[in-house]
Amino acid sequence: MTPVITLTTDFGSTGEYAGVMHGVILGICPDARVVDITHHAPAQDIAWAGRTLAAAWPYFPMGTVHTAVVDPGVGSGRGVLAAAHGGHVFLAPDNGLLSGILTEEARVFRVEETRFFLSKAGGTFHGRDIFAPVAAHIAGGVALEALGPAVEPDKIVRLEWRQARAEADGTLVGEVTDVDRFGNLVTNIPAEASGARGGKAGRVRIGGGRSARIVGCYAEGKPGELVAVAGSRGFWEVSVVCGSAREAVGVEAGAEVRLEAE
Amino acid sequence: MTPVITLTTDFGSTGEYAGVMHGVILGICPDARVVDITHHAPAQDIAWAGRTLAAAWPYFPMGTVHTAVVDPGVGSGRGVLAAAHGGHVFLAPDNGLLSGILTEEARVFRVEETRFFLSKAGGTFHGRDIFAPVAAHIAGGVALEALGPAVEPDKIVRLEWRQARAEADGTLVGEVTDVDRFGNLVTNIPAEASGARGGKAGRVRIGGGRSARIVGCYAEGKPGELVAVAGSRGFWEVSVVCGSAREAVGVEAGAEVRLEAE
Amino acid sequence: MTPVITLTTDFGSTGEYAGVMHGVILGICPDARVVDITHHAPAQDIAWAGRTLAAAWPYFPMGTVHTAVVDPGVGSGRGVLAAAHGGHVFLAPDNGLLSGILTEEARVFRVEETRFFLSKAGGTFHGRDIFAPVAAHIAGGVALEALGPAVEPDKIVRLEWRQARAEADGTLVGEVTDVDRFGNLVTNIPAEASGARGGKAGRVRIGGGRSARIVGCYAEGKPGELVAVAGSRGFWEVSVVCGSAREAVGVEAGAEVRLEAE
Repeated sequence: MTPVITLTTDFGSTGEYAGVMHGVILGICPDARVVDITHHAPAQDIAWAGRTLAAAWPYFPMGTVHTAVVDPGVGSGRGVLAAAHGGHVFLAPDNGLLSGILTEEARVFRVEETRFFLSKAGGTFHGRDIFAPVAAHIAGGVALEALGPAVEPDKIVRLEWRQARAEADGTLVGEVTDVDRFGNLVTNIPAEASGARGGKAGRVRIGGGRSARIVGCYAEGKPGELVAVAGSRGFWEVSVVCGSAREAVGVEAGAEVRLEAE
Repeated sequence: MTPVITLTTDFGSTGEYAGVMHGVILGICPDARVVDITHHAPAQDIAWAGRTLAAAWPYFPMGTVHTAVVDPGVGSGRGVLAAAHGGHVFLAPDNGLLSGILTEEARVFRVEETRFFLSKAGGTFHGRDIFAPVAAHIAGGVALEALGPAVEPDKIVRLEWRQARAEADGTLVGEVTDVDRFGNLVTNIPAEASGARGGKAGRVRIGGGRSARIVGCYAEGKPGELVAVAGSRGFWEVSVVCGSAREAVGVEAGAEVRLEAE
Repeated sequence: MTPVITLTTDFGSTGEYAGVMHGVILGICPDARVVDITHHAPAQDIAWAGRTLAAAWPYFPMGTVHTAVVDPGVGSGRGVLAAAHGGHVFLAPDNGLLSGILTEEARVFRVEETRFFLSKAGGTFHGRDIFAPVAAHIAGGVALEALGPAVEPDKIVRLEWRQARAEADGTLVGEVTDVDRFGNLVTNIPAEASGARGGKAGRVRIGGGRSARIVGCYAEGKPGELVAVAGSRGFWEVSVVCGSAREAVGVEAGAEVRLEAE
């Protein structure tokens, strides 16, 4: 079976940083297939990287080693986690990045065995010196147990992922979490919540009362119309057909979104 | 033979979208080599993606599966095409993207067999749910005939590709189609038209009469000089040696360009 | 052994240029693993590409073929070099790009055998027509001797790499060479020079006298503090903990940096 390793970082594509991680991996595990999920997380935005990896990992083959390095605490005493969850492996700093992905059933280990690091590991680029070589060793067959001591899943650093909440009348109140390059506004209201895919259609409100009609796909709307669709990440997204909802509504990440029952 | 799959999309590199396509492909066809031609087509610019794929595909190995997803009609009734042409396979929405590539001899099929899609195909991200898995199945050996009914090549959606036209005196009149990151102005006047590669040299005019001298390569010009070269895409390009023609001439895509015979 | 080829260019990710190089390589050497170090060198900045490749190559497996194409002289009489150095192979224009990497012990050849080029090599895109196919042939086993005549290492084009200099009192005076996406200011003062990793700590001055405290890693500083760390490239870097040194100090590449002994 071909081992697959994914990378999710904030290193950007200017500079040698992401490429060097590929090089280190191929030196240890020459058969590994390395896939860049993204290197464009906003600098040091741990939650963004966590949401992105959460959306991506289920679409990779069983056994994939997902390596995420958004790491403001690099060089400090912050731990490094390796975890088995859902048939995949996750490797990331213990800074909350994985806290929205791993469940109580995950097997989690703290990576401490320096023999799996590059021999001259420094204090500023653990993506190269620790995460890449450890990912390659895991892909090559090293058991997670060999990396360091087990950790209780509820003892890892948690990051508060803001979740939508329900009001008394059934309205769900969430927020815009991300804006994609088409200007679509991705929310944290789960697509299954109501209205999705043939369910009982309600209405989405955003930007101080503007109403987005719930549709099954962009093409059901008219050009220029503000619509809400069950997005590819499994959350409601607000879009303008053939346009930019960001510009039309004039909001950014953090703006309140309401899903009203019919 | 190692199967090769290329991707040409407008998904950008921020977000998990392109990486997830790699993941889906590797889950179905673990041996596939996936090459990103670009994920930076201008949002929903079908013609741009078509021109880019047209310039790239001849340089890939025979049998490559070229997957292009610029898809404003995602989720609507627009079809999906799989076509065999020139020893390669092309997979794209039936929205004109392939209309400048496929000839009358192409064997074209409409992809309808949902058993080759992801089982939970949604309405917003067919790159992940339809194009990636179908490309992987083709790379793994599924015949195009198995994907759906044959389509006559002249029945696919056509996109008007603007072509240069000849005036009575032999002058060719075209336009700037693309501006690259060096500020070179790529035109739609074929490089073979005249003057190219040792042919009878004429003159290129742009930006209201400014004259670009035809040279064999940038290095034949003087630094700062406005020159015209037979570009790598097979069309005339207007460049400033060690500078930016976009800035020097002050034009963008769409500007008229004239190739005058000597 | 899986052959590895790296690419370092200024082609950007908009356009088909980098992807086409992958395609040409896979057509000649289907087993090659192609790693993008970066395609975002500043346009025609030979020295930038040289520094980046110098930082990256030691982290790749022995035998890797490093291909760098920042090539303002494309199409002119400038030569193409293939060199063996440190167990790796380097392929680049003879324009100084490799002059900071190759030592006197390197075996250097001038690539002249056109049978290893694409058959229709043009004058504008040697990345596709010359560098990609030659890299693939080398990865596939062609000896460097077969590519063209040997060149004395001291006869290749040299690019002046600005180096830090020592003043009478032991102070090292260098400059900012690069600014990364976090706003860290990378200098040309070697990290071993003094103060690094437990050595005798001094002080780094930048921006007209502002003082950066030497720390072992970012986490040793306080949020907002200006610090100097031994960076991943092996040079001193000036950073603001959880912030941007570029913004805090208000300097760009070229700014003077002084490392004062204690």
